[in-house]
Amino acid sequence: MGIYDEHLDRNAANYQPLTPLTFLSRAALIHPDRTAIVHGSLERSYRDFYARSRRLASALSRRGIGRGETVAVMLSNTPAMLEAHHGVPMAGAVLLSINTRLDAEIIAFQLDHAEAKVVIVDLEFSEVMAEALGKAKAAPLVVDYDDPDFPADAPAKKGEPIGSLEYEALLAEGDPDFDWQMPQNEWDAISLNYTSGTTGNPKGVVYHHRGAALMGYANIVAAGMTGHPVYLWTLPMFHCNGWCFPWTLAVQAGTHVCLRWVRARAMYDAIADHGVTHLCGAPIVMATLINAEENDKRPFTQTVTFNTAAAPPPQAVLAGMRDAGFEVTHLYGLTETYGPAVVNAWKAEWNELDRPGQAARKARQGVRYPALEDLAVMDGRKMEKVPADGETIGEVMFRGNIVMRGYLKNPEASAEAFRGGWFHSGDLGVMHEDGYIELKDRAKDIIISGGENISSIEVENALYLHPAVQTAAVVAKPDDRWGETPLAFVELKPGRAASEEELIAHCRAKLARFKCPKEIRFAEVPKTSTGKIQKYVLRKMIDD
Amino acid sequence: MGIYDEHLDRNAANYQPLTPLTFLSRAALIHPDRTAIVHGSLERSYRDFYARSRRLASALSRRGIGRGETVAVMLSNTPAMLEAHHGVPMAGAVLLSINTRLDAEIIAFQLDHAEAKVVIVDLEFSEVMAEALGKAKAAPLVVDYDDPDFPADAPAKKGEPIGSLEYEALLAEGDPDFDWQMPQNEWDAISLNYTSGTTGNPKGVVYHHRGAALMGYANIVAAGMTGHPVYLWTLPMFHCNGWCFPWTLAVQAGTHVCLRWVRARAMYDAIADHGVTHLCGAPIVMATLINAEENDKRPFTQTVTFNTAAAPPPQAVLAGMRDAGFEVTHLYGLTETYGPAVVNAWKAEWNELDRPGQAARKARQGVRYPALEDLAVMDGRKMEKVPADGETIGEVMFRGNIVMRGYLKNPEASAEAFRGGWFHSGDLGVMHEDGYIELKDRAKDIIISGGENISSIEVENALYLHPAVQTAAVVAKPDDRWGETPLAFVELKPGRAASEEELIAHCRAKLARFKCPKEIRFAEVPKTSTGKIQKYVLRKMIDD
Repeated sequence: MGIYDEHLDRNAANYQPLTPLTFLSRAALIHPDRTAIVHGSLERSYRDFYARSRRLASALSRRGIGRGETVAVMLSNTPAMLEAHHGVPMAGAVLLSINTRLDAEIIAFQLDHAEAKVVIVDLEFSEVMAEALGKAKAAPLVVDYDDPDFPADAPAKKGEPIGSLEYEALLAEGDPDFDWQMPQNEWDAISLNYTSGTTGNPKGVVYHHRGAALMGYANIVAAGMTGHPVYLWTLPMFHCNGWCFPWTLAVQAGTHVCLRWVRARAMYDAIADHGVTHLCGAPIVMATLINAEENDKRPFTQTVTFNTAAAPPPQAVLAGMRDAGFEVTHLYGLTETYGPAVVNAWKAEWNELDRPGQAARKARQGVRYPALEDLAVMDGRKMEKVPADGETIGEVMFRGNIVMRGYLKNPEASAEAFRGGWFHSGDLGVMHEDGYIELKDRAKDIIISGGENISSIEVENALYLHPAVQTAAVVAKPDDRWGETPLAFVELKPGRAASEEELIAHCRAKLARFKCPKEIRFAEVPKTSTGKIQKYVLRKMIDD
Repeated sequence: MGIYDEHLDRNAANYQPLTPLTFLSRAALIHPDRTAIVHGSLERSYRDFYARSRRLASALSRRGIGRGETVAVMLSNTPAMLEAHHGVPMAGAVLLSINTRLDAEIIAFQLDHAEAKVVIVDLEFSEVMAEALGKAKAAPLVVDYDDPDFPADAPAKKGEPIGSLEYEALLAEGDPDFDWQMPQNEWDAISLNYTSGTTGNPKGVVYHHRGAALMGYANIVAAGMTGHPVYLWTLPMFHCNGWCFPWTLAVQAGTHVCLRWVRARAMYDAIADHGVTHLCGAPIVMATLINAEENDKRPFTQTVTFNTAAAPPPQAVLAGMRDAGFEVTHLYGLTETYGPAVVNAWKAEWNELDRPGQAARKARQGVRYPALEDLAVMDGRKMEKVPADGETIGEVMFRGNIVMRGYLKNPEASAEAFRGGWFHSGDLGVMHEDGYIELKDRAKDIIISGGENISSIEVENALYLHPAVQTAAVVAKPDDRWGETPLAFVELKPGRAASEEELIAHCRAKLARFKCPKEIRFAEVPKTSTGKIQKYVLRKMIDD
């Protein structure tokens, strides 16, 4: 025992649980009149945002919902979704955000597995939720949310109410001055997000207050946010809790601009009318911005930072975004890492490179996020770091405070993911000499042909360099002679043409011959709601 | 036990101690070639800064210094001081930064009380350190630091070496690739700072890794730092570890510009030549900038943020700073709160106020820092918050993760400071209706005259509004009839004149009569090295 080990213990004055909930209370105290939320014609101040979140927490508490109980929501990027991110944990409860594209069966599984006590559902999804509730054993309190700004030209319709009460009626039960309590422990769960579950049942990823709070700071540093940022909701909030930006914005009393549907006109309107400074999304959102009709575009003068993930931004998209006035930051992470945990930290000297050189740098996933303690590319069997040579493929692994607590009620999967004291991402990549990682594939997406590893991403990147290619996805096709060979699914750009022979010849000019696709199929490439290509669907299509 | 309480435990993959040490390793990984430190003609990259910090940690470890042992430094704002902030805790040890203005007796007390095992001392201070070591029971390893950029026109001289070896020789013993270990626990001590101890022995304030890491993020948010900030060292790093900026800058791979002596020409040169974006200091530093000779001023185009604390910035100083191109942020805190824990968060609408109105807003200490969980003005006996009426005086109290662990080897003082689960600052203030606090006095500085409380700060503010007043300090003078009356010590501006009668008349135009000083004394006002007025010295002068 040293002198610093005695009489210097924790107490209420010098130790408080880390939680993002204190961000909102602080923003409401300092900036009660600042606009916290814009949603169509609705503008809500921080005073009201905080009061409504407390009403929600109070109403849940009065209905007996408390610490460690699950409150599910199936909501679009609306004010209610933002309130749920604060109000649910202020009641001590855990927020389960359900992907709005899921079918009834998976929704029912999630409600049962998480033992949901409440579900708040947007009327757009009431039909599928009713079906899910029919299949589920859980019998949560069902609350309808009738979006006050459901646009007249919406691509979907509202369904009928299915709940016991409407969201505003629930809020009316609560006290706007509710004396919410800090979490008992910063390790307490704050939210639950199910992975897409390409094989087997979805796994429930548990986040804690500590990690969510640290992401609040880390996002600010990584995204270069200062002053009062204005954030446009193009990334679904059900996706890794919107990469924790629902909490982050409160640190600087920034403004959330909600967006129910990601359409070009609405995005440009928000940027021009509300002074948006930041937005996030998959490359598809960038394509929507770039390829917008001229009528839908609006000029803007501020710098707008676009944080993208899910896939490296293709060179043409990067050039298009720059010409359109956006700065693109490439992020990478998984549901298990609270969203982004790796950032392509851009260096000023890279601006001297030519455009392909810049695109090659931008395609790297990068370095650990400010709040991540360690990032490595490792030989998974030996649990040793691979050489930083840009060539040796290993598994990308994470260690730190923005890694999930584990999978809910699934200790086997948690132990498997955490073996050796690192979170195993399942993604394969290399470590470059300069310490930046670059993904080469999902472990299951690597193609082994004649004993040689082929990175499907490398083949896709070659295909993307062809001017007619809109989307490319390469999977392994079983082959009697080679074991596997690369099979490419390709979507062409509207109005452009290219033959199978032409694309294969194009690849041969770029890649070693054994890496080139033996076959090209022109077809719509299936994607998740967040823009990730669903290779497991493509694999099922191989024999079609 | 709920479902979230099972099988979701901490492990090395999902839990790491919070520490600012990972900030430097990250900066060195991502930006090895960026300039971390500028000191005169010396420029040091992040690669070298990290390697030298590791050398220091390695050398200390090889000499048997480890967890929970104290390494003292008596250094100016030099590269060695920055290296010590990282290298000492990388060895698991605790950094004691000794105020360079202290006398031998207090230094000896600190070395003994902290059981210092090593002391690194700048040659400027070798004489007083030698004297202190003569008085001390502790027999630390003494290391001399010979500043490579000790200017020829320095206002002080180097003394003779007194140590066993020179700092560079110590570093040469260490391994630049030293595999430093994370702290065992984020609650482990990282540094020790003795309060100035106006009465009795100084108290040793213990900081932990957790708080230092959180300050890293909080400073960024509060100071509006983005990109790669350039920070000028006008605040002594021995003062609350330079408000934790030695660690903060690494988060964004910013540049430290060292400054051995705070002189106008050197500050303007740094701002113009190195693109300084941020600096911190007491109002005296602002006065030095504003009142510089025209020859010493340099034009600059960037926005420079000046964070000030110790005393509310007077109106004339604020106007002068604005005219000179600086943005002033007013911060408040104590050694016990890692430096700033309260920020005068400025609101855009306040820019519409006239200059006195703006100065009145700027004089408020403000709201809790981003990483502070709670701030209150309380009735210390009842431990109840005073009404937010801007009038009721109470004691300012803090609660959160940037409050010290306690006072070293002084459980009584710690218990007293933490009674009721709040850190008692000893400062008196009011809570305004809008949630901003404003200090009215130190508890011991309040003047009680005829049973009425008089805030010495209020009287000082009135005096500062007189154009001839450079510095004003008001203390209580014992009075047979009234108990106490306000006595003002005043320094006039060079070349300006004002009589005692004139200043008292000036006060009567601004204040209730009972608050006005009964007597004015024109004298040099004693200040600490950080610019704080030493009222205890003034009190001793009352009977002179």
